[in-house]
Amino acid sequence: MPEASKENYVVGIDLGGTKILAGLFDGSLECIGTAKVSTKAQRGMETVISRIERCVRDAVDEADLGLKQVAGIGIGAPGAVDFETGTVIFAPNLDGWKEVPLKKELERQLGVPVFVENDGNIAVLGVHVAELKAKPRHVIGIFVGTGIGGGLIINGELYSGFNHTAGEIGHMVIDVNGPKCGCGSRGCFEAVASRTAIFQRIKEGIKEGEKTLLTDMLGDGLEDLRSGDLRKAIRRGDKFVAKVIEQAAEYIGIGVANLINILGPEVVVLGGGVMEALADEMTATILKTAKDHAMPGTMKNVEIVVSKLGDNAGITGAAVLARREIK
Amino acid sequence: MPEASKENYVVGIDLGGTKILAGLFDGSLECIGTAKVSTKAQRGMETVISRIERCVRDAVDEADLGLKQVAGIGIGAPGAVDFETGTVIFAPNLDGWKEVPLKKELERQLGVPVFVENDGNIAVLGVHVAELKAKPRHVIGIFVGTGIGGGLIINGELYSGFNHTAGEIGHMVIDVNGPKCGCGSRGCFEAVASRTAIFQRIKEGIKEGEKTLLTDMLGDGLEDLRSGDLRKAIRRGDKFVAKVIEQAAEYIGIGVANLINILGPEVVVLGGGVMEALADEMTATILKTAKDHAMPGTMKNVEIVVSKLGDNAGITGAAVLARREIK
Repeated sequence: MPEASKENYVVGIDLGGTKILAGLFDGSLECIGTAKVSTKAQRGMETVISRIERCVRDAVDEADLGLKQVAGIGIGAPGAVDFETGTVIFAPNLDGWKEVPLKKELERQLGVPVFVENDGNIAVLGVHVAELKAKPRHVIGIFVGTGIGGGLIINGELYSGFNHTAGEIGHMVIDVNGPKCGCGSRGCFEAVASRTAIFQRIKEGIKEGEKTLLTDMLGDGLEDLRSGDLRKAIRRGDKFVAKVIEQAAEYIGIGVANLINILGPEVVVLGGGVMEALADEMTATILKTAKDHAMPGTMKNVEIVVSKLGDNAGITGAAVLARREIK
Repeated sequence: MPEASKENYVVGIDLGGTKILAGLFDGSLECIGTAKVSTKAQRGMETVISRIERCVRDAVDEADLGLKQVAGIGIGAPGAVDFETGTVIFAPNLDGWKEVPLKKELERQLGVPVFVENDGNIAVLGVHVAELKAKPRHVIGIFVGTGIGGGLIINGELYSGFNHTAGEIGHMVIDVNGPKCGCGSRGCFEAVASRTAIFQRIKEGIKEGEKTLLTDMLGDGLEDLRSGDLRKAIRRGDKFVAKVIEQAAEYIGIGVANLINILGPEVVVLGGGVMEALADEMTATILKTAKDHAMPGTMKNVEIVVSKLGDNAGITGAAVLARREIK
């Protein structure tokens, strides 16, 4: 059993609209225990908070430790967060949470200091510290999943801007006449390139008579469709799915170029469930489109990489945050 | 005659694709002499540099001073700039300048230290220091003229990114199927909302049979059309021009919202020739569209203002830069 010094252990939590992931990390930022539960946001805030609590206890137990040995907890939430107070200001994907005092509630229930940040910020922090060894000074994280989240490292530090809302790259309009977005606008980055957008385009195509192996695999309603199914279909020669994914990759490439033109980063990191499942299928097109749309001089020695942390970027970043704050 | 202490005086230069503007500034950052010449970029780099030299000498002479009393010169150039070496890496609007050692050449000819920056960066620096008194920590400058330039103040400092190219907001794609841009992409911010884009839409409209007072004012070819003519036409009741300007203002509002979503600034400053001429006609639509497209929480207490410096933002920022660097 590892030495039970309180300073050594922190918990990182990734609070998503669908699932909650928690990880217990040791002093070398190794993850030595994880747990996962579904979020059940529709049951209300109190249920979600008690599910977070259970998930934390499970991850700690998984590593044969107790909460008393945990020095701090970091948590990434999907929405605007006031870091100072640990309040979730607004989270549309958590059944519309508004002004939820997440830090206060979790500290009361767990008896450990809790630090709350936006999930995109947390994920780019995790990648920057654990994967890039905190070397590049300016990093943009683009996380393609149900929606598209982002996070910015500027001058070596997490940057969250005046209202703690910087990095809402998913609602950058790139196709002003494009499909409607959940936010009310049209043609937002996430309305054309997220998993939601990809699935919708596939379902519309089927209605219009496109043939796809996905209906053989999952039935006409495409029940339980996942990003991994798209990869399988493409590898079995599904031309329609390949075309939809190619188009999404082009949109992601344009989003990357926009952000390079605006921010001049050293590294662009792509992550999230869609990238994890379809990196091999999408990366070449993303790189080519980004290069075509970035201004001369902006791309020199800039790296565009797919994160190796996959789904663990969020819990890793949350652990980094907790470790930093308890010091 | 003012006291001739060398530390007191600096020159700020705005090097544009069409004209060169120089201003002599005293110790309180008051502009006490200006000069303007056309750029004549097509005649080649050496001609442009000697015209800059002449423009500087004229501005100094205008203030009854001599070059010996000037402690430093700042210059904003329209393109990617390496600040350390003072080289213009690439400037499409200067007849395609590449790797021009502007600092070195001007220092040789003028015998005064010269500091070179990108023109969008310089302009936002001028607005930040001279107009906003350096108070807001995070500022985005959007300068709408022949093209659309930008500049970023982050954490109170000018931010130029890894390759010194940050702030190329004019080439953020916002209408992926929109009109072709000079950069090769489609639907860039400046391809839909710059003066060039506005003029093109007006000329296309006339070809398609739209009626406008502009042809009465300037002839069918719209020779010497300027932003001010659009204002005059609108005020005389020109519905077609009003509609084109309304549409450009909507695009600018979308650009503003994109940048607020991505960067979370405290202040967004609008400037450049188009804003100077048409602020009264465009501002309400820009604000409304920005508000409609920004995410909840991002706009709280954020100011969107039109710069009062007008065409002088560039020379003012260049003077600020020179003063800062000679200290």
